Amino acid sequence: MRLPGLIDPHIHLREPGATHKEDWDSGTSAALAGGFTLVLAMPNTKPPIFDAATLDLALAAARSKARCDYAQFVGAGPDNASWGRRTARAANTDGTPVRDGKGLPRGAAGLKMYLDSTFGQLRLDDMTLWMQHFQNWPKDMPIVAHAESRSMAAVILMAAIYDRPVHIAHVSLREEILLIKAAKERGIKVTCEVTPHHLFLTQPPSNPPLNSQNLGEGKGVGGGRWEVRPRLATQVDVDALWQNLDVIDCFATDHAPHTLAEKDGENPPPGFPGLETALPLLLTAVDSGRLTVDDIILRMHTNPRRIFNLPEQPETWIEVDADARYEIRAAEMKSRCGWTPFEGWKVKGRLHKVVLRGKTAFEDGKILVKPGFGINVRG
Amino acid sequence: MRLPGLIDPHIHLREPGATHKEDWDSGTSAALAGGFTLVLAMPNTKPPIFDAATLDLALAAARSKARCDYAQFVGAGPDNASWGRRTARAANTDGTPVRDGKGLPRGAAGLKMYLDSTFGQLRLDDMTLWMQHFQNWPKDMPIVAHAESRSMAAVILMAAIYDRPVHIAHVSLREEILLIKAAKERGIKVTCEVTPHHLFLTQPPSNPPLNSQNLGEGKGVGGGRWEVRPRLATQVDVDALWQNLDVIDCFATDHAPHTLAEKDGENPPPGFPGLETALPLLLTAVDSGRLTVDDIILRMHTNPRRIFNLPEQPETWIEVDADARYEIRAAEMKSRCGWTPFEGWKVKGRLHKVVLRGKTAFEDGKILVKPGFGINVRG
Repeated sequence: MRLPGLIDPHIHLREPGATHKEDWDSGTSAALAGGFTLVLAMPNTKPPIFDAATLDLALAAARSKARCDYAQFVGAGPDNASWGRRTARAANTDGTPVRDGKGLPRGAAGLKMYLDSTFGQLRLDDMTLWMQHFQNWPKDMPIVAHAESRSMAAVILMAAIYDRPVHIAHVSLREEILLIKAAKERGIKVTCEVTPHHLFLTQPPSNPPLNSQNLGEGKGVGGGRWEVRPRLATQVDVDALWQNLDVIDCFATDHAPHTLAEKDGENPPPGFPGLETALPLLLTAVDSGRLTVDDIILRMHTNPRRIFNLPEQPETWIEVDADARYEIRAAEMKSRCGWTPFEGWKVKGRLHKVVLRGKTAFEDGKILVKPGFGINVRG
Repeated sequence: MRLPGLIDPHIHLREPGATHKEDWDSGTSAALAGGFTLVLAMPNTKPPIFDAATLDLALAAARSKARCDYAQFVGAGPDNASWGRRTARAANTDGTPVRDGKGLPRGAAGLKMYLDSTFGQLRLDDMTLWMQHFQNWPKDMPIVAHAESRSMAAVILMAAIYDRPVHIAHVSLREEILLIKAAKERGIKVTCEVTPHHLFLTQPPSNPPLNSQNLGEGKGVGGGRWEVRPRLATQVDVDALWQNLDVIDCFATDHAPHTLAEKDGENPPPGFPGLETALPLLLTAVDSGRLTVDDIILRMHTNPRRIFNLPEQPETWIEVDADARYEIRAAEMKSRCGWTPFEGWKVKGRLHKVVLRGKTAFEDGKILVKPGFGINVRG
């Protein structure tokens, strides 16, 4: 079975700053091994990507290491809300010049706004900052918001007021999907994504314990592995997502790798890896009649391409053996983080081959393109 | 100086349930002594007013005790979102019949939604409940929301989605007033009120300590007297309110009496009395050039009458001695609560007389109408 190359609009690659978890090489290898030919990287790295200098830092790493195509988000911060208005002669917040029209924001995948929790320099507490970003960021460039519950409603209001699109990251709650549905019906320009883990997992303790069925290792595992933002939700929430599939524009992994030592340690960081499990999980849902292959193509290729204004990747497709059954094993994965919340899950539908711009980039478990093969689609 | 009878769309009268703080008699006496001829009472009493039976309870007390005109809000709860759709044959949540078209919701001032903090039975955590209330409550009847910051933005989104008006209670923050301004400019049907205490006080400790300058009693006073929701804000917030007076539709007191024993005790309840201080404080601001008398009339008569669809009160006016200077003293007030956060404040502009429906209801400090003189303007 042949599908178009999948697009993941929401991944964390940890470079710069935390390459022991993942980098542009391992992360884009994981992407190819998951059937993704194009990924959009989030800006909450160390340092965060929020101006021309930090964007250059990330893109330099990507240029030399990426094995699939990509673009890099920039983050909305409290001090950079004017950048959408900068011209060739303007300066970044640190005084360095913005070079030209190919600099910010045109060289970025889009603008990411962190509106809940604390994300260091990229936190936006005051809604007047949101308003500035909405006013200044170019209307034809994407804005993606991490905004849960009432914050989500608030950012949808921004889209209504400023009459521009906003994309809601990782929707997880019944109230969220129903409010997005109502806003769409009213004509507000909102789109959204849902992660596989919010479709397939519920909050502990209703969740099967990770230490037996799921990880299959017999090891005691702390609750830290379940930490993810947004949190895993209730069965009522999960059911509401499935019942409102037509409201969900994209499936995005929110691939957020951390090592097992970190997840099982003190102050476990939130986040799951997801690039290498999304497609088999969703194909298994096709097998059980909950989805169609067209549902997958729409939400993992057609819609993300349209919403994020991404170019066509010529001669690009993936091949899947829809009947292959296997067990998910982190040990077989390309991600550096070394674990998955879906360990031991039995799935049906295996990625066989990835062809990216005419070249076989992945086949039968092996990455066949070198670091640097990937291109910046905003370049 | 003659002004129209003032309208306060936001007061708490504590009856039923806490008449040691205030009741329909003392509260409406305080209203008259403040220049208000019509007040709208909030539903978070004990029990809360949320169906025909509890509305009857409040209105029975009002009928026998109120000295000025009034109407009573009903509260939006998690279990009563369908009431707007009830007809003569429908039943309340407790099974009692709704009597007729004059019952709920037509007999109420409007619907009050508590969307922040905990207000017992009237808390609405889940936004899908908000959506139900917005869908079901009649479009020509007011909805008032206690909703701060992001919750405020979320409820304005409801107004945008369901294309019906919402009135935001006690706006206190810069981000709130600026977002309301932007929403109004976009044509969203939102109105708002600001309290005198949010116009004249800032958060402690920048606030002058209540125990010396303000209360003038020399007594040590706990921080409990400062407790109010929304909290007193920063000078930046207060300045933003004054700079955006044109966005403020109403001045409302949020008169929320508690006794000094309660305010100075353990777990001090939030709330300030306000009925008897609003007019002199605002007239003093006129004297200092921050406001005009027309600003007051617009926000304390014309706009509340329009927003809450209130009838004209014939032969009704108030008379003010604009040059009279005095010090605010709780000891001279009609409210049962016995204190004010503005104790000792020097003001200019004193209420001399209130004429309500042709009868002198207040003159030179004395209430001249009996309990029961007030009428239910939704009756």
